[in-house]
Amino acid sequence: MSDRDRKQRFQQGPQKGRDSGRNQDRWQDKGQGRADRGRRLPRHGRDGGDGPAILYGWHPVTLALANPNRTIRKLWLTENAARRLAEEHIATRVTPELVRPEIIDRRLGPDAVHQGMLAEVDPLEAPDLDDLPHDGMVLVLDQITDPHNVGAILRSAAAFKVNAVITTNRHSPEATGVLAKSASGALELVPIIAVPNLARALNQLNDQGFMTVGLDSEGSENISAVPLSAPLALVLGAEGKGLRQLTRDTCSAVARLDMPGEIKSLNVSNAAVLALYIGASKLGLMS
Amino acid sequence: MSDRDRKQRFQQGPQKGRDSGRNQDRWQDKGQGRADRGRRLPRHGRDGGDGPAILYGWHPVTLALANPNRTIRKLWLTENAARRLAEEHIATRVTPELVRPEIIDRRLGPDAVHQGMLAEVDPLEAPDLDDLPHDGMVLVLDQITDPHNVGAILRSAAAFKVNAVITTNRHSPEATGVLAKSASGALELVPIIAVPNLARALNQLNDQGFMTVGLDSEGSENISAVPLSAPLALVLGAEGKGLRQLTRDTCSAVARLDMPGEIKSLNVSNAAVLALYIGASKLGLMS
Repeated sequence: MSDRDRKQRFQQGPQKGRDSGRNQDRWQDKGQGRADRGRRLPRHGRDGGDGPAILYGWHPVTLALANPNRTIRKLWLTENAARRLAEEHIATRVTPELVRPEIIDRRLGPDAVHQGMLAEVDPLEAPDLDDLPHDGMVLVLDQITDPHNVGAILRSAAAFKVNAVITTNRHSPEATGVLAKSASGALELVPIIAVPNLARALNQLNDQGFMTVGLDSEGSENISAVPLSAPLALVLGAEGKGLRQLTRDTCSAVARLDMPGEIKSLNVSNAAVLALYIGASKLGLMS
Repeated sequence: MSDRDRKQRFQQGPQKGRDSGRNQDRWQDKGQGRADRGRRLPRHGRDGGDGPAILYGWHPVTLALANPNRTIRKLWLTENAARRLAEEHIATRVTPELVRPEIIDRRLGPDAVHQGMLAEVDPLEAPDLDDLPHDGMVLVLDQITDPHNVGAILRSAAAFKVNAVITTNRHSPEATGVLAKSASGALELVPIIAVPNLARALNQLNDQGFMTVGLDSEGSENISAVPLSAPLALVLGAEGKGLRQLTRDTCSAVARLDMPGEIKSLNVSNAAVLALYIGASKLGLMS
């Protein structure tokens, strides 16, 4: 089986009998290329690159205010937002700038649900891979680029008490803007470790005794039948592209999720939350 | 407990100890109102209203072509897309119009990953509530408005062999454009039944012997402990708003999902896929 044929299909496999194995990334039409460009960076808060990260909306901003490790640089509040924070007895930590909602609209673009709050903050410091606790789970994302999906995955990671989310330095969205909004405050709860080389990071986890399980619709075993044990690293690839070959080869197991319906693939954040639920259940974290 | 306080928090509850029960919908700031407007309709294929629905991208278009119940009105293909369909021996059913990718770009806007394919199709006919099979599951969506989320939910519904997705006529996105793209072909596999009155539809399901289970972080029981039985209707509310009071009151049970982490709420499509997995497991559909 070729590298290309073995690509990960846990989230985005061809649908049985209707799409005979051709992957999206062989598809060279212009529509695809342009869209990839569109998905590379979060739409709001692009200035998050090396500068401050942008957080907006109730959960992202209030959880940042509650996080002593988060440095707040600037805080823009509408009058309503300032009143609400006061009513909830939430300290703003820095002197907020009171602005009209349109000012925040203009900064973020027309689609952002900012609820009258925008904060410029410093990125959080990431822990070292070697310092990860040896119980529970970590999640590894192999070049998942869509900030909405990565945000939703972080939110689920916080809900299932994941110790860290490990991503690649490149081909991963910045922890700012849309991603932070979709994460709904999870940025303050789950550390993100961005690594230059994912296979090396997985080897490091393997050496530390982690069970590293890649998810792939062509995995050799159904994940329900795999005896998962802590510390557990669940590894997910991007929709369309899937796990890269070297990522697959470095995992200690590659498992699939059998589902009863005609579609055999899920949205990547949906696949992630199922994997987390199954992992947490098997590790006894759900009781 | 007041109506407002009891709002559904399965997907979007305030985070423990940090957001003491104030819901987003009490939040009257302009940012929120504008964003609601932005989320009401799918961004692409707005002309899907009473006219044809717009499908684009490989899975939505090829599964529509494979669905004998789907009437294809027009098919725009780039040369690459036409070649790929031919190589895969997929019949186009109507004479395609060969266009340059920019023509499709212009029709859909810059963010659509159309892969050189766009079809104008007739909406599918929905079955009657009374004709639902009395085994397995249906999914009920109480005014979930975001087309990406509803699309991802449909995709998961197809993966878990759901018999139908029931939505409200109003405050639900059209089955076209972004929703169809996110559904990844699931529109052809899972019928959508849009009803004018959700409580009446739930009563009808109750009368037919369905177990109707609402999902809510303040539900009286953990869903893992609820003895689920077929036919099963799983009922989900919108993020922020949750299940409406009348919806809750009409369900035969309201269950929560206990999770071990600090965030107690998930993205709505993530909550949906977990509910489907738990439902399918308990109904013996996963083996």
